Amino acid sequence: MTSASFDFAPLLAPNLPVPAARWNGFPKYNFIGGHNDAERVPVDQLIAAATAVLRREGASLATYGLNSGPLGYRPLRDFLVAKLKSHAGITCTADEILITSGSLQGLDLVNSLLLAPGDTVLIEQETYGGALTRLTRLGVKTIGVPLDGEGMRMDALAAALADLKRRGVQAKYIYTIPTVQNPTGTIMGTARRAELLKLAQSHGVPIFEDECYSDLIWDGERPPALHAMAKGSGVIHIGSFSKSIAPALRVGYIVAGWDLLARMLALKQDAGSGALEQMVLAEFCAAHFNTHVPALTSGLRVKLDTLMEALAEQFGTSAEFEEPKGGIFLWVKLPDQVDTLKLSQAALAAGVSLNPGPEWSTDKAFGKSRLRLCFANPAPETIRQGVAVLADVCRREFGVPARIANVERATAR
Amino acid sequence: MTSASFDFAPLLAPNLPVPAARWNGFPKYNFIGGHNDAERVPVDQLIAAATAVLRREGASLATYGLNSGPLGYRPLRDFLVAKLKSHAGITCTADEILITSGSLQGLDLVNSLLLAPGDTVLIEQETYGGALTRLTRLGVKTIGVPLDGEGMRMDALAAALADLKRRGVQAKYIYTIPTVQNPTGTIMGTARRAELLKLAQSHGVPIFEDECYSDLIWDGERPPALHAMAKGSGVIHIGSFSKSIAPALRVGYIVAGWDLLARMLALKQDAGSGALEQMVLAEFCAAHFNTHVPALTSGLRVKLDTLMEALAEQFGTSAEFEEPKGGIFLWVKLPDQVDTLKLSQAALAAGVSLNPGPEWSTDKAFGKSRLRLCFANPAPETIRQGVAVLADVCRREFGVPARIANVERATAR
Repeated sequence: MTSASFDFAPLLAPNLPVPAARWNGFPKYNFIGGHNDAERVPVDQLIAAATAVLRREGASLATYGLNSGPLGYRPLRDFLVAKLKSHAGITCTADEILITSGSLQGLDLVNSLLLAPGDTVLIEQETYGGALTRLTRLGVKTIGVPLDGEGMRMDALAAALADLKRRGVQAKYIYTIPTVQNPTGTIMGTARRAELLKLAQSHGVPIFEDECYSDLIWDGERPPALHAMAKGSGVIHIGSFSKSIAPALRVGYIVAGWDLLARMLALKQDAGSGALEQMVLAEFCAAHFNTHVPALTSGLRVKLDTLMEALAEQFGTSAEFEEPKGGIFLWVKLPDQVDTLKLSQAALAAGVSLNPGPEWSTDKAFGKSRLRLCFANPAPETIRQGVAVLADVCRREFGVPARIANVERATAR
Repeated sequence: MTSASFDFAPLLAPNLPVPAARWNGFPKYNFIGGHNDAERVPVDQLIAAATAVLRREGASLATYGLNSGPLGYRPLRDFLVAKLKSHAGITCTADEILITSGSLQGLDLVNSLLLAPGDTVLIEQETYGGALTRLTRLGVKTIGVPLDGEGMRMDALAAALADLKRRGVQAKYIYTIPTVQNPTGTIMGTARRAELLKLAQSHGVPIFEDECYSDLIWDGERPPALHAMAKGSGVIHIGSFSKSIAPALRVGYIVAGWDLLARMLALKQDAGSGALEQMVLAEFCAAHFNTHVPALTSGLRVKLDTLMEALAEQFGTSAEFEEPKGGIFLWVKLPDQVDTLKLSQAALAAGVSLNPGPEWSTDKAFGKSRLRLCFANPAPETIRQGVAVLADVCRREFGVPARIANVERATAR
């Protein structure tokens, strides 16, 4: 049963992306994707939440949008109002929150709201690969702003904004992941956030703040959101439950003024995001969010330590990295001769998946010998084995790390 | 906390749709939307399904796509393989099914796969309003093919195809809702389906078959799907669980050859559709689908009878309609002087929502005095009251029905 006998090729829309490859299961050593720790999914509590909320309100599944309207399940928005206030300093009402099918739908809605082909946006030079591919597909120009240990560099942003002004170009937004930056794992301090807001406002450019990872901070100390510091003015904020509860639940949210949400609702032609997931999350989060997240985070921290130890052991000084402040990934620099696009192909053949740096950066040369390793999903022993396999592949392909890397390290430090 | 102090207006993308209105709860008499019967949501069975599947596989929520890959939860696809075979005669494998976030995402993916601005599609003259608004927004030309009591008229389709051929225009697809047509409620017979396939194939135009309502047939007798009759060649088939289980669960599916699904997967950049809903549905459906649906349908049939009786009583001969073969809506013709776009405004002010015909037709003049009434959601007594209110509003605005409609009817018939 195939469509082979009818030839669709001449009918396809122009400029389609490359077809997806067939899925053949996860690689043995899975260091990509935002997958989380299977042992930390709060299964019992989710069952209890599903049972309670379905018992109480299951009949409302007969209605699109339940009894909450198109912005999403009201108790979940109410939870978010309180959570965003206490965790991120954001003051908003339930009518200023739109529940989305993952924060990816949030990205799409904000892009649809603001962007047309040929537009220009400012974006962190190293950033979420999915944001970059979306912008490329939309025909939008991205200007990458270099990072340091606190995220986007303000001298570089000021220069980029001044350059655009000189050229008469209106940037549509500044996209930033200020808290647990993806992929570098940095946190932008409060002073720099103030500087960013000042620069953005003085140039009339809104900020698109992506706070997907902000719940996962080792010390639990999260600066106020840019949205909070700006009192909502000129900032669109998105977040997600994918990282804090479970990624397969596709529930994210957008925080913005009603004037913008009304525009985005008109673009969100999906008859609402999945209701059962919203109901179960709201029920679960009201009772358990504040105890679940620290337990999850401390487990992630152990896995990060395992990964960093394994890298030090297997790669020695060949693998350079800064310890991330939270999250689920480590951004690693290998020696200059390593091409991580090639490495990722060779590694995959050996059962190791990784994100090559060029896919996570606007500067392909800068990204060339860098890679992102996600550590949340594999068990500690799998992390150790996977890093050993990766070191073998890298050595075979690029001559580094030297075979005695761990000895080198012991003597060098 | 608004974005009012920052002016986004100059930054908005061109040609955005009209902003959504604030949601103020459902109208008292709700005859729009695909809402279903709240009393028929199988709450206890959904709780049991959620409990069982989370207990067994809840930990897999830590992984995007669970352990099933991007096509969707494998047990749900396996259920669909069997269900599509037994109910619709479709032979396909689990790799030829893509689970979507409602069939609306299916519409969007098929449109993204095939359509570019300026393209032409053939579509039933009266059809799903959401399909029409999508095509309009995409800048696609729609050619409406008139209907009769068996759906799309083949003489009209043949003429339309011949005319396109003469003009050298390649239609991108023929969109049809053959089983419980929306809004007319007709079912296309097997002979006409064969004729449709022959016409489509001889002109090299694929068929886009939307089978959202095909589970809800009063006598349970469903003709084979076009996809089945064509052995999959040149037919893309979509369906949904919204109508058969619960609309707030956003779970639909596309059946197509892998070559097309691989293209659509590349366009489906949402990291998968909601996993919990897929898991619970798969667990529920395997055990209960075949008993749940007839119970739901018989309840819907009672509500349809209530609506038809109420219309006869309140509107007499002023309301003309054919009894639908299944589904959740009735397509009604009022006297020519009634403008249902105006009627819908006046009715809404009185607490009655309805779909005006022009929004459900490519022929605005034909649709002018027609309307769609959904009967699945309101209780029988609410249906009766709502129709009475609607008759009052219609009489006030357009002078019909005459006040003694029910008497007229009693004497006239």
